[in-house]
Amino acid sequence: MTSAAAERAASLLIKYREARALTERLCEPLATEDYVVQSMPDASPVKWHLAHTTWFFETFLLGPHEPAFRPYDDSFAYLHNSYYETMGARHPRARRGMLTRPTVDQVYSYRASVDDRIAELLSTELAERNDLLDVVELGVNHEQQHQELLLTDLQHLLHQNPLRASLIGPAPSPSSPGPTLELIEHGGGLFEIGHDEDGFSFDSEGPRHRVHLEPFAVSSALVTAGEYLEFIEAGGYSRPELWLSDGWAAVQREGWQSPLYWERVGGSWQRFSLYGMLALDPHAPVAHVSYYEADAYARFKESRLPTEPEWEVLARELSSDGQFVDGGVLVPVAPPSGSGFAGSVWTWTASPYSPYPGFMPAAGAVGEYNGKFMVNQMVLRGGSCFTSASHVRPTYRNFFPPDARWQVTGIRLARR
Amino acid sequence: MTSAAAERAASLLIKYREARALTERLCEPLATEDYVVQSMPDASPVKWHLAHTTWFFETFLLGPHEPAFRPYDDSFAYLHNSYYETMGARHPRARRGMLTRPTVDQVYSYRASVDDRIAELLSTELAERNDLLDVVELGVNHEQQHQELLLTDLQHLLHQNPLRASLIGPAPSPSSPGPTLELIEHGGGLFEIGHDEDGFSFDSEGPRHRVHLEPFAVSSALVTAGEYLEFIEAGGYSRPELWLSDGWAAVQREGWQSPLYWERVGGSWQRFSLYGMLALDPHAPVAHVSYYEADAYARFKESRLPTEPEWEVLARELSSDGQFVDGGVLVPVAPPSGSGFAGSVWTWTASPYSPYPGFMPAAGAVGEYNGKFMVNQMVLRGGSCFTSASHVRPTYRNFFPPDARWQVTGIRLARR
Amino acid sequence: MTSAAAERAASLLIKYREARALTERLCEPLATEDYVVQSMPDASPVKWHLAHTTWFFETFLLGPHEPAFRPYDDSFAYLHNSYYETMGARHPRARRGMLTRPTVDQVYSYRASVDDRIAELLSTELAERNDLLDVVELGVNHEQQHQELLLTDLQHLLHQNPLRASLIGPAPSPSSPGPTLELIEHGGGLFEIGHDEDGFSFDSEGPRHRVHLEPFAVSSALVTAGEYLEFIEAGGYSRPELWLSDGWAAVQREGWQSPLYWERVGGSWQRFSLYGMLALDPHAPVAHVSYYEADAYARFKESRLPTEPEWEVLARELSSDGQFVDGGVLVPVAPPSGSGFAGSVWTWTASPYSPYPGFMPAAGAVGEYNGKFMVNQMVLRGGSCFTSASHVRPTYRNFFPPDARWQVTGIRLARR
Amino acid sequence: MTSAAAERAASLLIKYREARALTERLCEPLATEDYVVQSMPDASPVKWHLAHTTWFFETFLLGPHEPAFRPYDDSFAYLHNSYYETMGARHPRARRGMLTRPTVDQVYSYRASVDDRIAELLSTELAERNDLLDVVELGVNHEQQHQELLLTDLQHLLHQNPLRASLIGPAPSPSSPGPTLELIEHGGGLFEIGHDEDGFSFDSEGPRHRVHLEPFAVSSALVTAGEYLEFIEAGGYSRPELWLSDGWAAVQREGWQSPLYWERVGGSWQRFSLYGMLALDPHAPVAHVSYYEADAYARFKESRLPTEPEWEVLARELSSDGQFVDGGVLVPVAPPSGSGFAGSVWTWTASPYSPYPGFMPAAGAVGEYNGKFMVNQMVLRGGSCFTSASHVRPTYRNFFPPDARWQVTGIRLARR
Repeated sequence: MTSAAAERAASLLIKYREARALTERLCEPLATEDYVVQSMPDASPVKWHLAHTTWFFETFLLGPHEPAFRPYDDSFAYLHNSYYETMGARHPRARRGMLTRPTVDQVYSYRASVDDRIAELLSTELAERNDLLDVVELGVNHEQQHQELLLTDLQHLLHQNPLRASLIGPAPSPSSPGPTLELIEHGGGLFEIGHDEDGFSFDSEGPRHRVHLEPFAVSSALVTAGEYLEFIEAGGYSRPELWLSDGWAAVQREGWQSPLYWERVGGSWQRFSLYGMLALDPHAPVAHVSYYEADAYARFKESRLPTEPEWEVLARELSSDGQFVDGGVLVPVAPPSGSGFAGSVWTWTASPYSPYPGFMPAAGAVGEYNGKFMVNQMVLRGGSCFTSASHVRPTYRNFFPPDARWQVTGIRLARR
Repeated sequence: MTSAAAERAASLLIKYREARALTERLCEPLATEDYVVQSMPDASPVKWHLAHTTWFFETFLLGPHEPAFRPYDDSFAYLHNSYYETMGARHPRARRGMLTRPTVDQVYSYRASVDDRIAELLSTELAERNDLLDVVELGVNHEQQHQELLLTDLQHLLHQNPLRASLIGPAPSPSSPGPTLELIEHGGGLFEIGHDEDGFSFDSEGPRHRVHLEPFAVSSALVTAGEYLEFIEAGGYSRPELWLSDGWAAVQREGWQSPLYWERVGGSWQRFSLYGMLALDPHAPVAHVSYYEADAYARFKESRLPTEPEWEVLARELSSDGQFVDGGVLVPVAPPSGSGFAGSVWTWTASPYSPYPGFMPAAGAVGEYNGKFMVNQMVLRGGSCFTSASHVRPTYRNFFPPDARWQVTGIRLARR
Repeated sequence: MTSAAAERAASLLIKYREARALTERLCEPLATEDYVVQSMPDASPVKWHLAHTTWFFETFLLGPHEPAFRPYDDSFAYLHNSYYETMGARHPRARRGMLTRPTVDQVYSYRASVDDRIAELLSTELAERNDLLDVVELGVNHEQQHQELLLTDLQHLLHQNPLRASLIGPAPSPSSPGPTLELIEHGGGLFEIGHDEDGFSFDSEGPRHRVHLEPFAVSSALVTAGEYLEFIEAGGYSRPELWLSDGWAAVQREGWQSPLYWERVGGSWQRFSLYGMLALDPHAPVAHVSYYEADAYARFKESRLPTEPEWEVLARELSSDGQFVDGGVLVPVAPPSGSGFAGSVWTWTASPYSPYPGFMPAAGAVGEYNGKFMVNQMVLRGGSCFTSASHVRPTYRNFFPPDARWQVTGIRLARR
Repeated sequence: MTSAAAERAASLLIKYREARALTERLCEPLATEDYVVQSMPDASPVKWHLAHTTWFFETFLLGPHEPAFRPYDDSFAYLHNSYYETMGARHPRARRGMLTRPTVDQVYSYRASVDDRIAELLSTELAERNDLLDVVELGVNHEQQHQELLLTDLQHLLHQNPLRASLIGPAPSPSSPGPTLELIEHGGGLFEIGHDEDGFSFDSEGPRHRVHLEPFAVSSALVTAGEYLEFIEAGGYSRPELWLSDGWAAVQREGWQSPLYWERVGGSWQRFSLYGMLALDPHAPVAHVSYYEADAYARFKESRLPTEPEWEVLARELSSDGQFVDGGVLVPVAPPSGSGFAGSVWTWTASPYSPYPGFMPAAGAVGEYNGKFMVNQMVLRGGSCFTSASHVRPTYRNFFPPDARWQVTGIRLARR
């Protein structure tokens, strides 16, 4: 046991409490009913997010490390395991919304109990081991990822209801026009990408390795809702030549005619948010587009989407002055007041989610964290107004299937 | 206005209050979460039942008759219309479980408000018109039908949860063996069936008309769980020759191996009920079988199911001493304490649900009550432990598709 | 052995040869390719019909009765059994169109071989047993049923092809207007229905039994295409109040806007037939409507469909002078020249297909012929231009699910 | 016009004739019935391949270049366009098997007519333009790609039939053991990949560009059926930890327990081929595995799949002596006698199919050739026994979705 480890334990306990408290603060506007329902197989009930993140700490932290560990409830592993095959059988994902028990109150009691036990554990000398503290840090980051999912899933759920309820308020003012769009030219060359600095990262952010880039150019700003509207008005959703084949099939199968949450009301466009219905903000980044729509828009503009190495190399070079990541863009979607979230919308890249050279998942269940999803997904870079500020870094690799639209996903163009 | 009408209005107001109060009493054991979720497209959330029955009174009673009528909430017609095409667009049935708003509290406020307005209306001279009072009576019976659906839907919902929660208790004692089974022989002949007596009936119970019956025989008792177990143990679920073609397809598609809610736990059979898991009661009537299973069981016993005229003719003849309807059968499923429910399980008949000769649906929306469902459904007769006692009469025609199993449906055999 | 049996055997051999030859004559216009494809799970390839009817004779006639019987090909039972569970496993119905082997030539060789062996068998004294001859007669009637299915399946197949090929020609002249429509009133009463006369019948046509009918009226003529067009033009396909609930769901799910095979070409209606595209014949009976459409049309005309006892009682009374069955109606669809087919379109009745009182399927595999389909089907009466003339009798009970449209199905109205 | 162009025209006409003749020679063993049926939406009827490749030449070569061009048949563009949105509406892919017309004979007549017209065109001075000749060359390569698809689709079709017909024969002798497996180590570095040499290539093989590779190792031989059997026997299909998440879902959904076409007959494994059922050849490369299976096998062997740049760099370095591509592997599947096919099985790479830097599809319809499929697909390298020898080159990029198994797809392992 070292004083450095003790210090780290103390620091992580603070982060743990902040993250756990923020999750619950995000839920303050909810009615009990809002916690229960699952709006689609890809989304989860809020109640499930609250319990699953708690189960993660209980299972991977208390389980191996708490003396005389006993599960809080024998049924919870089955109910709240997400996808860890190593941890045994689990309730089918698509049926998470069938569970009215445990109730919301019972889930909050579960959270409180685990919080107490973890505070206890982190206050003992037992905690002064880096492998244990690594799990705390992973769990905190995991909790923060679920904060974003909780909000996107909630927005999707409320959108199923024709009442178009407003969960929070008041709505933000419309954005001002951003700075003039520029194309940032880059000469290419041999670079290192991937995480190797101090500080936390997820496994798939490494290993750090070299890539060669041909010269490229990336736009200085995200595509705005007003610019995307031009694509719609130019018939973008009825011109198959602009679309990937699978994208065009999705347009026809799903009847897409605009980004998710957009509605034409009378003569004007509105979008649904956690504030309820808002007038479309033409200067805000377009959000809730699929990869297919991002790609079709790029083709419409005789451009393409950036690859993830291009994005990362540029983000690193520009991040000192913040010119790139924020790009003058205001927060477009509903940021819960005082939530500490930053950023605007995720950027779809042209890169499928694949392992970096030499990538090797960790042994055991946490090795299932990212590796087994490395097919049929596209990488997103940056972060959104729902993303924890601490996750917004040049190496973070978010990923979703190319037809996903309920995340806060947007477009940045590239050329060459 | 007549004193008879005033008397009827007063009497119906009492029935109204009793029915409305019973609905809410049935919900007392529920957590808020239990009101919200829809377990399958055929079932509805409890919250929806509470609001829909209220909308029925608001729309068909207050709407045409209340002076200066204003809807309680402009969105509620869209949300709570079940299937009345005449009343305009409505929320898709399969998506009733997506609605977290209005909340449970808001629905109870809605109920209270409509209850007040109806009490007010029924206390004025306006109410002394038989056409208005007919709607009250229909609405009360409609509320009672939804009490049964509320309970069956709730049982189905709780069954989705591996926790197998017990909603009420304590569980009843196992049944004693019933009286010896007899085959009641009947010589057939020309009979009148259908409703024409005083008292309320649904439209499809008439017109009264003549039918000719060939000689037949019907069993004096319902098939018990223990008897049905012999069918299972004789390989009934793997012998196609016992099944209708569509039934055999259902067995294979759904993987049926026992009635719904039965589970083999260790070496013995249990069944899920609102009391939670109970040991199988061999002397209680088998419940939660589909028409296909009832039909296959009958074939296994070299028998058949009774037709609805056979059932009705016999029920009328025997109903004076209760020998037939109750047949010595104890209540098999969870009867909410003090709920006033009677009967045991519904009897599947061999009769498809068709209009009686001369049947003509009422004009307007209430004409949609039964007529448009007269295809692809089989008639059930009698009543169950979840059925309002006032509905258990010789002419009542319940109906469900032949693969439905979540209602409290059982088997009575016939011969010839 | 009796001379009566010998005579019956000789007579049945003639019928056998005629029926088998007609099946093959119906196929003369086909290309090899037309024999192979299955257009939907409910239809079968022509090649399969040719082989299945042959397998029926081989299995139920040669199998038990031919000395030293050996199957023609060991794989054919698996491939050509339709639905006889008693006869063992079989190729899945929906995948009959996957089989390019045996080839068409091989199937014709199979037919020829079985024909020879049956001719041989029927020429011996072995054949002079009525139980054996009953199977011959059933097999001939079975072959004739498949002649009709072969033609309806073929029409459905050719309709999948945008070429709208004409298989036969020349097309018939349009119909002349029929006699003035009359409503034939009937006083009701107690009647016997069902088969008991001499001559062949299928099992489900009996037992003969008494039914009581309330007074009713039935139209003297089938509904014409021109009359049905008025329903379309009055918005019949967009008025839910005219439809059964399941029917309205089918309209929306399938996008029905007219009978099957109708197409609006330029400003006028055409229909697809085995002659290719023909102008709609307004005086011919409307064909290729589902039960749902027949029922909705009847409601549109403030009428209803006749029940099967009503139809049978009236058909018997009127059949002496042919007033009823043919009703002045010309052949509407493609009758293969010289095929001996008679009649016009089947009449949907309001009666679900149920067993008659006392119905008991035969023992063994042939007991699966009809009984196991007695749910989820509606009865059709009469016959069509594709039906063998010998099947057009007052007791014949055809049946299809209420959404089936590829058979030659039409409408006759009733009242009361 | 130059003599070089005339020479190229003459040379291409020879290649054209050879390719067209080979396609028809491959069909010689077929019965007419085998040409018609579509076994799944991803496959096409043989007849359709014959017509589609002809339509390709007619549309892209004769259409713009033949004087006084008239389509052979006005309906053929609709029927035989595969996926060229630019060329207008087309018959739905999943319904290609519904078309019994045009018949096989008519398709051969169509082929002969277009062949004549192309021979005519290529014999005139009109043909001496490189843009025209480029289309001929593309069309020949396109025809060759469809030869492979025709054979794989045919094998899939015949496999639907329980008869397990043998199309050709006699079957080849089992393979001898290959040379000892080696791991070929490579130091990585900066390389150029992609096509830039003389000779034909598809658009997606370029542009040539630089990539940086970290050190890696690739196996000298393909994984054999015998090696793969060890994976099966070690429970590979029931160990989720070996699988990608989507792969494990496919295993469960599809019930995979072995490669496609493998069957356990008695105690030993057999595989279905165009020769009919053959004993499993343990020394032949495993074929007909999905990407998911290839990836799971690699994980089982604590290895991974090679990326496409790794494969290409190594293939180039080793191709002088043929050590790599053929790797000692004998032809594993049914090579039509004298067909000129070479190679063994395709190698799944770990690389999703993405555009190379600077890739820009051609203008017009041929630009749809590859670009629009660059999502949700994995790259395959090398070639199979069904691949035209002229396609087996270091830069060729084949691609299929990760769950595809009906192509001749195998596994080569990599490390690091």
